[in-house]
Amino acid sequence: GENIFLIAKAFHQNFIIPEFTTFCENIEDLYWKVKSKTDGKVASYIPQLARYSPDLWGVSVCTIDGQRYSIGDVDVPVCLQSVSKPLTYALVLNEQTPEVVHQYVGHEPSGRQFNEIKLSADNKPHNPLINSGAIVLCSLLKQDFNLADRFDYTSQMFKRLAGNEHLSFNNSVFLSERETADRNFALGYYLREYKCFPKGTNLMETLDFYFQLCSVEVTAQSGSVIAASLANGGICPITGERVLDAGAVRNTLSLMHSCGMYDYSGQFAFDVGLPAKSGVSGSVMLVVPNVMGVYMWAPPLDQYGNSCKGIEFCEELVDKFNFHNYDNLRHTHRKLDP
Amino acid sequence: GENIFLIAKAFHQNFIIPEFTTFCENIEDLYWKVKSKTDGKVASYIPQLARYSPDLWGVSVCTIDGQRYSIGDVDVPVCLQSVSKPLTYALVLNEQTPEVVHQYVGHEPSGRQFNEIKLSADNKPHNPLINSGAIVLCSLLKQDFNLADRFDYTSQMFKRLAGNEHLSFNNSVFLSERETADRNFALGYYLREYKCFPKGTNLMETLDFYFQLCSVEVTAQSGSVIAASLANGGICPITGERVLDAGAVRNTLSLMHSCGMYDYSGQFAFDVGLPAKSGVSGSVMLVVPNVMGVYMWAPPLDQYGNSCKGIEFCEELVDKFNFHNYDNLRHTHRKLDP
Amino acid sequence: GENIFLIAKAFHQNFIIPEFTTFCENIEDLYWKVKSKTDGKVASYIPQLARYSPDLWGVSVCTIDGQRYSIGDVDVPVCLQSVSKPLTYALVLNEQTPEVVHQYVGHEPSGRQFNEIKLSADNKPHNPLINSGAIVLCSLLKQDFNLADRFDYTSQMFKRLAGNEHLSFNNSVFLSERETADRNFALGYYLREYKCFPKGTNLMETLDFYFQLCSVEVTAQSGSVIAASLANGGICPITGERVLDAGAVRNTLSLMHSCGMYDYSGQFAFDVGLPAKSGVSGSVMLVVPNVMGVYMWAPPLDQYGNSCKGIEFCEELVDKFNFHNYDNLRHTHRKLDP
Amino acid sequence: GENIFLIAKAFHQNFIIPEFTTFCENIEDLYWKVKSKTDGKVASYIPQLARYSPDLWGVSVCTIDGQRYSIGDVDVPVCLQSVSKPLTYALVLNEQTPEVVHQYVGHEPSGRQFNEIKLSADNKPHNPLINSGAIVLCSLLKQDFNLADRFDYTSQMFKRLAGNEHLSFNNSVFLSERETADRNFALGYYLREYKCFPKGTNLMETLDFYFQLCSVEVTAQSGSVIAASLANGGICPITGERVLDAGAVRNTLSLMHSCGMYDYSGQFAFDVGLPAKSGVSGSVMLVVPNVMGVYMWAPPLDQYGNSCKGIEFCEELVDKFNFHNYDNLRHTHRKLDP
Repeated sequence: GENIFLIAKAFHQNFIIPEFTTFCENIEDLYWKVKSKTDGKVASYIPQLARYSPDLWGVSVCTIDGQRYSIGDVDVPVCLQSVSKPLTYALVLNEQTPEVVHQYVGHEPSGRQFNEIKLSADNKPHNPLINSGAIVLCSLLKQDFNLADRFDYTSQMFKRLAGNEHLSFNNSVFLSERETADRNFALGYYLREYKCFPKGTNLMETLDFYFQLCSVEVTAQSGSVIAASLANGGICPITGERVLDAGAVRNTLSLMHSCGMYDYSGQFAFDVGLPAKSGVSGSVMLVVPNVMGVYMWAPPLDQYGNSCKGIEFCEELVDKFNFHNYDNLRHTHRKLDP
Repeated sequence: GENIFLIAKAFHQNFIIPEFTTFCENIEDLYWKVKSKTDGKVASYIPQLARYSPDLWGVSVCTIDGQRYSIGDVDVPVCLQSVSKPLTYALVLNEQTPEVVHQYVGHEPSGRQFNEIKLSADNKPHNPLINSGAIVLCSLLKQDFNLADRFDYTSQMFKRLAGNEHLSFNNSVFLSERETADRNFALGYYLREYKCFPKGTNLMETLDFYFQLCSVEVTAQSGSVIAASLANGGICPITGERVLDAGAVRNTLSLMHSCGMYDYSGQFAFDVGLPAKSGVSGSVMLVVPNVMGVYMWAPPLDQYGNSCKGIEFCEELVDKFNFHNYDNLRHTHRKLDP
Repeated sequence: GENIFLIAKAFHQNFIIPEFTTFCENIEDLYWKVKSKTDGKVASYIPQLARYSPDLWGVSVCTIDGQRYSIGDVDVPVCLQSVSKPLTYALVLNEQTPEVVHQYVGHEPSGRQFNEIKLSADNKPHNPLINSGAIVLCSLLKQDFNLADRFDYTSQMFKRLAGNEHLSFNNSVFLSERETADRNFALGYYLREYKCFPKGTNLMETLDFYFQLCSVEVTAQSGSVIAASLANGGICPITGERVLDAGAVRNTLSLMHSCGMYDYSGQFAFDVGLPAKSGVSGSVMLVVPNVMGVYMWAPPLDQYGNSCKGIEFCEELVDKFNFHNYDNLRHTHRKLDP
Repeated sequence: GENIFLIAKAFHQNFIIPEFTTFCENIEDLYWKVKSKTDGKVASYIPQLARYSPDLWGVSVCTIDGQRYSIGDVDVPVCLQSVSKPLTYALVLNEQTPEVVHQYVGHEPSGRQFNEIKLSADNKPHNPLINSGAIVLCSLLKQDFNLADRFDYTSQMFKRLAGNEHLSFNNSVFLSERETADRNFALGYYLREYKCFPKGTNLMETLDFYFQLCSVEVTAQSGSVIAASLANGGICPITGERVLDAGAVRNTLSLMHSCGMYDYSGQFAFDVGLPAKSGVSGSVMLVVPNVMGVYMWAPPLDQYGNSCKGIEFCEELVDKFNFHNYDNLRHTHRKLDP
């Protein structure tokens, strides 16, 4: 059934990246160029992350009309970690208005460390993509369900965004995260003190839910489909299914644009100018709106907690192609259109 | 000479806003709707600003192909104040590479008050659109010229961006600014202590230059042409002259998008999703890339220092039209295309 | 047995306050003067504290040679709350050297709120008299005992300091404290993240122990004996028993002098110049070294969390008598010697 | 004339340190012991300080009854730098009530760097012994005099405190200080913005006055007389003249006790328990109330800006003698009474 949808598009000959073979050659060149970059340190606060080989490096591309290209370690399961945060936010926005959701969380880059114990002037987490904001968002997602059903619902939604491709749960990571999460427990109690949660929230359950979403695994391949679903306004390009409301996706991309790359977000918005989200597993999920999703994975992290190879790849990509948010400004010297 | 340029475009019938009359009716409706909003307080730290009537309210639009619409108090000179900051930044970028310029100033929203005495972790002002960053930028602009020539050059560039329309200098404002600028003097010495200026910088001259650029006046009409020149990638839509390099404009818009509206910047980027800059005179300069520039002026300010009517107008505009940065996401429910 | 000790002193006629009757008349005058001060608000974060009548007001004095004077509500049990903190610190110092203890906690006034989530530059709580410091101290006290024995030991030591007078435990307060202690749980996890506890510390048990010590009750009468034991270098003036090592008491008084009155500590050291500690129950325990202990109790608190009447009484006392740390400076205009 | 005063005391045989010869032998032993401590770095922000030899080391003692002992480099002029701050504060208190003076400056240790640009919650400098507080105090001292007369008055008062012994002015230091004082200018403007100065204050003159008082020189010998005048309640032990009101001295000692040693003040109060003030020239002025003044000088500074040898000497002194504020607590194991 799904194939027919894709074949139909091919017959119409109106793919968003018409010269896809040439484009893939460019991606391959960038892949090898970036592979030689060997700086950064693999996260080590839990043994499960520390065991990732520093040489792992994979890139997957999925366009909004379902063309695919992958190179490197693209079939190894990797934990979403913070990459789950914009998905959680999108799922909450899918059910509640931005006005309601943003009574609990701000829209501002925090200008501070991702896990700092500090609220905005009106006593809300600064945005949904830092730990405190994501924890609060977890309390808002299907709050009337029990914990099993909440996780079930969320992972099914993630899977639909991924076009039913690989999605798994790493229970060892979850247990380790929970074991070592002093800061997140501190954050949780601090948030409760400031009445940041909706009434009736069970703090321990909410933190468990948060750790569980961080422990969901994708592959670079399935992750690129999730990114492509966002690039495509909420409709999965592989299945053609509308998974998320377009308004929810719009707002998610808006915050990924300004707050997605930890303390490097400002520089990233300036240099790359695209919505993205990184995670401590070494993942970077990049969205080129109306064009494609990209999922990069390489465990060694820079000082900000972003994958070194991932950042480098994004910058090279935007140096070559016309993807920066303001690249299409009139009278600009043209780079390549993909 | 200039007229021929515009007439030529008209004959080609390819204006960016084809139904301009209808569009102007919409703008007029919004103008009257917003006029009734009477909250906010006129800035009073210098007498020259305090004397602005709280009832002043003007909106001017200039498209990238030179169509114009104005309503209200659009011919009264008004000081640029902080609206000069992105222009200064663009002028510096016009002559030096972003790499050189950003050795002196960051790209990050500061997460703090616009005039806070605080540098980023690497001892730079957070970005060029807060006071400390703008003061440093003033030291970089034509640093080998004497002060008279630096001001001369800058005001001529501003005038060229404004299509040679109204530009004046309010010497009383300059004198008052300098008289009452304890915080900016404190910032200046603090920046010098941290070696934030290039070698050979004369601090007092730099501060004078900064106060002078804040005291340059436009009208809403001429201001809208400046905004349109930015929307048009650096080519003035009225004269057809390339005033700024397109790359300089791209980077300026990028930072206006994330840092232009003081501490409201995050919310503004989320709600409006367009590059803009406000000033304490009650000005808001808004850029719709590849479409038009808008200059709004109404003195009463909200708690963040932004014009109440200006903010309201921007939000109403984006509610009606398809201008938000992520509005063109595929499969989104469509608003009006202008 | 104990009486003999006191009678012996009386026969020797060398009481530290020779004209004790006159002195007590002065205390009574101050008591009534301060009673009319009706500002402040009773703490309300747990119902057990909120139920204290705002009119309760008692003052008890016990000299280092065991003379006693009490007036007002001096037989009503009142929770120590933060007044327990210097006692905990003294007990820890009684068993371990200051060098070991201060590996875990600083000696500095924090310049911040008593419960702020912030450590000193070397990642220790600023001092033992703020919440974070007191929680860490609880982990150091008889750490090899089980919880029941730790509490048993500590409350027995408190009772010996109080000359075996009233000491009780308010289990409702303990349960309420634990129930509402989001900030203290946040602090606990934060401290554990920064490895502020000795190895093997059980966080939940430590917090329970902390809440329990806050829930120990004295009366103003028995509290004044505790204060007198501190004033007397660790020997209880009622029983003649050495309870604490004199060095432990010296260091405890030193920190009470600089850090005992929350954010008012600097002003209090300046105006009153004596070691003291206040608690949210409205208690103030004041030590006049080598002279006497005073325990004041009145529930309404000022903005800093100190008992309004307690502060007023201390200031009046030092205005009249020669008790300020620097009052005995040569050539100073003399106030009364008690 | 002055000699008669001293001889009279000698005949009365009631010197405060009866066994002065033995005491001096102890001081000499400590001097040599501390001399071997060679860590620390000489201040280098102005060339005049950088030129001090790191080997300079002098200690002078003057008792409240005028007995003297000096060893090492005690006749070399050294700038007071921050040691002038408590003297300025005492002079202001000598003329105005503490209530008036403390409308402009707090009594709290700041918990922050000595030159941080930060005011207390009620917009005052935290205390008179940090830069911002001292600058404000300079504006309060003889504010109706012209600058020449203000300096004249102040240096004469310093000289009277020093028993008319060595006092000089280092104009090169003054000029260098003013030249390099970006932070202090920043502080000055910041204070003016927050209206921290009394009406009519001339900021530039106030800063000049502040730099001038930092540039006044004493020798360790004359400095010890100043310290002894403070120890003696404001009466110079050499001349018998009352220079300062005893209340002014009491309050000065109170703040030196809590805030005199930069960010090490808390630890110093805990370990040494005596009023002291250090300066970046390597001076430490120590007051043992009712006993003596000590002036130590050795240029190499620790991380806090305190003289390494000076701190070490103070700690050794209090380890041997019974000088700590709480050393006279009853039932304490006795150290030496001098």
